[in-house]
Amino acid sequence: MEKFFDLVLNRQSCRDFADKPLEREKLVKIVDAARLSPSACNSQPWSFVAVDDPQKFAAVAEATLMYGANSYISKAKAMVVALEEFAPLKPAIAKHMDSQVFAQGDLGGAVLNICYAAEALGVGSCILGAFDRVKIHEVLDIPQEKKIFLLVALGYPNSAKVRPKARKPLEEVARFV
Amino acid sequence: MEKFFDLVLNRQSCRDFADKPLEREKLVKIVDAARLSPSACNSQPWSFVAVDDPQKFAAVAEATLMYGANSYISKAKAMVVALEEFAPLKPAIAKHMDSQVFAQGDLGGAVLNICYAAEALGVGSCILGAFDRVKIHEVLDIPQEKKIFLLVALGYPNSAKVRPKARKPLEEVARFV
Repeated sequence: MEKFFDLVLNRQSCRDFADKPLEREKLVKIVDAARLSPSACNSQPWSFVAVDDPQKFAAVAEATLMYGANSYISKAKAMVVALEEFAPLKPAIAKHMDSQVFAQGDLGGAVLNICYAAEALGVGSCILGAFDRVKIHEVLDIPQEKKIFLLVALGYPNSAKVRPKARKPLEEVARFV
Repeated sequence: MEKFFDLVLNRQSCRDFADKPLEREKLVKIVDAARLSPSACNSQPWSFVAVDDPQKFAAVAEATLMYGANSYISKAKAMVVALEEFAPLKPAIAKHMDSQVFAQGDLGGAVLNICYAAEALGVGSCILGAFDRVKIHEVLDIPQEKKIFLLVALGYPNSAKVRPKARKPLEEVARFV
């Protein structure tokens, strides 16, 4: 299980996708990892739309061309759209807290599971937070009232080169008491 | 890397901790996995307080005895407190979005990394979202303006038995188009 630490170091935002199709069965396995994520009171406050139809994918990829930064996304082969759903917390908790208070954190874990599952299958991933929401709702027939949380672009990477992680040092972000 | 899928199935909320100390070096490795998590614009909107001093741990564990559900937590050996920090997004993004818009999702991923790193080291974990915030701020000298996101209790599990995951079926939470 020590291999998990390799996964942490190897997962990175893929910005150079190869022109190689992504097998549907791998896409299913990747989304299934998100489904198995933990959530507050096992509320599972999520649903997913996984897009690998080339035309639909192209339309979704185009909707991520915001703030001029995501042009490499058009070369990915699939996109998973993560949606926030109602979180049925346990009554003893729901009495004191808003139903959605843990939803974004839980969805963040589910999205990370998508990236790890992809990496474990040799597939590159890139999380996208800036996109044209109206267009994506439209292209994928997502009801207006559902909140799109994040997108994850998927596809085989052109290179296996792992960039070193640029993170603040541990002593700057953690104290042990 | 296929082992990641075992990790997804084996990680579970530990509610029966063994009376066995948790090595400080393992605690450090677990928190380090959180530090290495991905975040929007690499903003790293987090910090962590890792508690393994028995007296401090007991005080924090007591602060989780809310809504009468967490009594098993007193038998864990450490607690990681995840705090939300300011997220410096890239200027092109920050122009259009609130700095903290991705912070909770990013923290959710960091917390899941804590659980996976623990599991990979044979350590049990339990995420806690209901706790007495005032008490934890006090016990750990956390400035009032910092938001405590979640706690993760850590310790060796009494049993290696893995419970099956109770999740909605894939076809209920995902569509493939």
